[in-house]
Amino acid sequence: MPVYSISHVENVRVCVVMVGLPARGKSLIAQKIVRYLSWLSIKSKCFNVGSYRRKIAGVTGADADATFFSPNNEEGLKFRQEAVNQAIKDMMSWFLDENGVVGILDATNSTRDRRSKILKLCRENYIEPLFLESWCNDEDLIKQNILDVKTTSPDYINKDSEFALSDFMKRIKFYETNYQTLNQDIDSNLSFIKLVNVNTQIILNRIESYLESRIVYYVMNLHIKPRAIYLSRHGESLYNLTGKIGGDADLSERGWKYAKKLPELVLKSLGEENINTDLTVWTSTLNRTQQTASFLPYKNKLQWKALDELDAGECDGMTYEEIEKQFPEDFKARDDNKYEYRYRGGESYRDIVIRLEPIIMELERQENILIITHQAVLRCIYAYFMNVPQEESPWMSIPLHTLIKLEPRAYSTIVSRIKADIPAVSTYKEKGTSQLGEFDNITSKSRDLLKGSSDGK
Amino acid sequence: MPVYSISHVENVRVCVVMVGLPARGKSLIAQKIVRYLSWLSIKSKCFNVGSYRRKIAGVTGADADATFFSPNNEEGLKFRQEAVNQAIKDMMSWFLDENGVVGILDATNSTRDRRSKILKLCRENYIEPLFLESWCNDEDLIKQNILDVKTTSPDYINKDSEFALSDFMKRIKFYETNYQTLNQDIDSNLSFIKLVNVNTQIILNRIESYLESRIVYYVMNLHIKPRAIYLSRHGESLYNLTGKIGGDADLSERGWKYAKKLPELVLKSLGEENINTDLTVWTSTLNRTQQTASFLPYKNKLQWKALDELDAGECDGMTYEEIEKQFPEDFKARDDNKYEYRYRGGESYRDIVIRLEPIIMELERQENILIITHQAVLRCIYAYFMNVPQEESPWMSIPLHTLIKLEPRAYSTIVSRIKADIPAVSTYKEKGTSQLGEFDNITSKSRDLLKGSSDGK
Repeated sequence: MPVYSISHVENVRVCVVMVGLPARGKSLIAQKIVRYLSWLSIKSKCFNVGSYRRKIAGVTGADADATFFSPNNEEGLKFRQEAVNQAIKDMMSWFLDENGVVGILDATNSTRDRRSKILKLCRENYIEPLFLESWCNDEDLIKQNILDVKTTSPDYINKDSEFALSDFMKRIKFYETNYQTLNQDIDSNLSFIKLVNVNTQIILNRIESYLESRIVYYVMNLHIKPRAIYLSRHGESLYNLTGKIGGDADLSERGWKYAKKLPELVLKSLGEENINTDLTVWTSTLNRTQQTASFLPYKNKLQWKALDELDAGECDGMTYEEIEKQFPEDFKARDDNKYEYRYRGGESYRDIVIRLEPIIMELERQENILIITHQAVLRCIYAYFMNVPQEESPWMSIPLHTLIKLEPRAYSTIVSRIKADIPAVSTYKEKGTSQLGEFDNITSKSRDLLKGSSDGK
Repeated sequence: MPVYSISHVENVRVCVVMVGLPARGKSLIAQKIVRYLSWLSIKSKCFNVGSYRRKIAGVTGADADATFFSPNNEEGLKFRQEAVNQAIKDMMSWFLDENGVVGILDATNSTRDRRSKILKLCRENYIEPLFLESWCNDEDLIKQNILDVKTTSPDYINKDSEFALSDFMKRIKFYETNYQTLNQDIDSNLSFIKLVNVNTQIILNRIESYLESRIVYYVMNLHIKPRAIYLSRHGESLYNLTGKIGGDADLSERGWKYAKKLPELVLKSLGEENINTDLTVWTSTLNRTQQTASFLPYKNKLQWKALDELDAGECDGMTYEEIEKQFPEDFKARDDNKYEYRYRGGESYRDIVIRLEPIIMELERQENILIITHQAVLRCIYAYFMNVPQEESPWMSIPLHTLIKLEPRAYSTIVSRIKADIPAVSTYKEKGTSQLGEFDNITSKSRDLLKGSSDGK
């Protein structure tokens, strides 16, 4: 029997067909869905027709402007048609040959005719088509989106942003002439989600499968306000000092020092202009995270059981050396597949991801937040935001006494870290050894998660 | 710091204002929301205007028919207005004096005028109004609903169902004359959910708070197809024989007998006409539930970590007598508040409910299903379906070697049980003692969950 993960509930494949004029946030939504589902071990991929078009038609030269998208530009039309065809072909191969589960066709798909062709193709291949339209008539939102994203698009390399903005507005005009929005009556036989002005209004039609309803719920919870997420492990604990895992130990002397310094680190990281920002603080139910949070001046503090450290079951309270000695086969099995390995009577990384799912959903809704949790849990949260693959995430180094700041942007997340400059033992175990590093700040570059990470295109 | 539960995320109160013609399933939806939220410890209550009206105007006498609801019946109008006023007044007191979190006003609320009065009242009291309309033009669905529910309504005591049906149709006609459905443009400033023909189409407008989005997601997942949910504990385990809790023991000899007999019990319970029904089987990740499922002939078997037994932390593997001896204060604390008590390094009943929440959501979506799990987890699932209060649910007796069948109906759940007639030890511990009962079938009537249970009106 396979252990449950969301993807196994039904034997269903979904093709999410994005619909919408340019600059409606389609690619952003598509990429977030892929990241979320991949994190849940649901095989997902985005097929962006714009990238195909650039590959086929190129974008260099001074003549690359909106006229390419004119309905009267026959060559442009040909290239664009070819790009769509290629994207659809690749997507279908991916579904059929690579057992893809959720494929996203990221294009304007702006006419009913185009959509019904995709519909037909999906039905022939037993793939459920789910149309996802982002409709927006809020001019300010559209302009903001163009300035945020499109002016730095590969389509406008070496062009100034004023030209890019006005050219892009022209491009939109060309699409508007043929655009047919999803209609509750005409399209009532389709499964669709229509987002009106971001999430102000949402129309759901024939959302039937579990997977579709997960996608809907996720999309419903997305917001686009800028915000920061702060992550920290608890301060060094007495168990850390002796290399024991698990337990519910108190902080060490140095751990308390970190707890006392944490408010200052947070303020520094907020920056002067945001010094009065009210943070929500989440901890686990374990002493060491609550002690670490105890000097923070924020009122809104919550404990989550779901943020507790990975349960090591029978190995709780042991050192890695003891585990290697007492359960040599388990020790090796865990090194061989750390993501899937479940401690006897305890948990695997996969188990943590499942229990973290409601936390991630809630994090998508929240504004500024500070989470104080544990090494394995933090790895999983970090993996979600930074799109770290499963085989790597359990091996990332996340040192003690370091505050991590994540700033989600349209196509990437900016990471910065603030070290407390308070020494701590290393809790990082390299593959194939039971020895821990000497100090957490002496970590090999290769597994240092905090360098140049991005979930961008 | 309070341990997280969904209600604590925001300091928000929501008034769900039902909207819809009679026989659109409003009361059913309202009651399910109350049951779901209450199970999650969110204080919720439904205020049904029909019940107020019956209390005020009475329903006895041969003259109690649709004419009461005619817009020209001045006395009727007066009574109905009084009923609404009283219901709203009681709801507001409940919000303000009893710290209610989600109140549901279950009435037709069919005019924009009525709705804007409620809106105003909510805003004055800092309560978020969320309108929830059930709109339906599928005549068959409406008739079915009237026959299922309304013909047995207190309004039609001693009337035959043919009279009830036609009279009720007349009543609907009276409401139709004034009815104003929620409109995406006219009502675009309201927070609302509009369900069109059950869940075929759903329109969401300005769903902003977390609590609102939870309600939306729950309502989205409800379905109305008849189905059965089968629940069983694992067969007697080797730990059960020695009175130990927790662990991952194998089945005892009698436990294996139960496992072998289970397929026959299920078939018997399905009934001859449903003998080919394909059940989905869910187990925990522990040996004893998987062994219990091992003779079932169904292909679709899934393991859920979330169905694992309550984690007894440091007490795992101990008997109640040992726990009483070693941790006398904990033992007493658990007896005093079994729902909230969290084992050292382990879980409380409340923790189980939080991790079961996705299971319940998925159960609402599923059709026929068989769940093989553990005593504490089964108590929590049972408590959800049967609306058992928190202070009682951890004390319910759920004997070994017994298959429980739940059939959710509009306003109640039918429970039946099939005993395997294979003896097993008792795992039931009465409050205030560390002794277990002798046999599970000798349980005191007062805590026997399986008698006359219902979550009905």
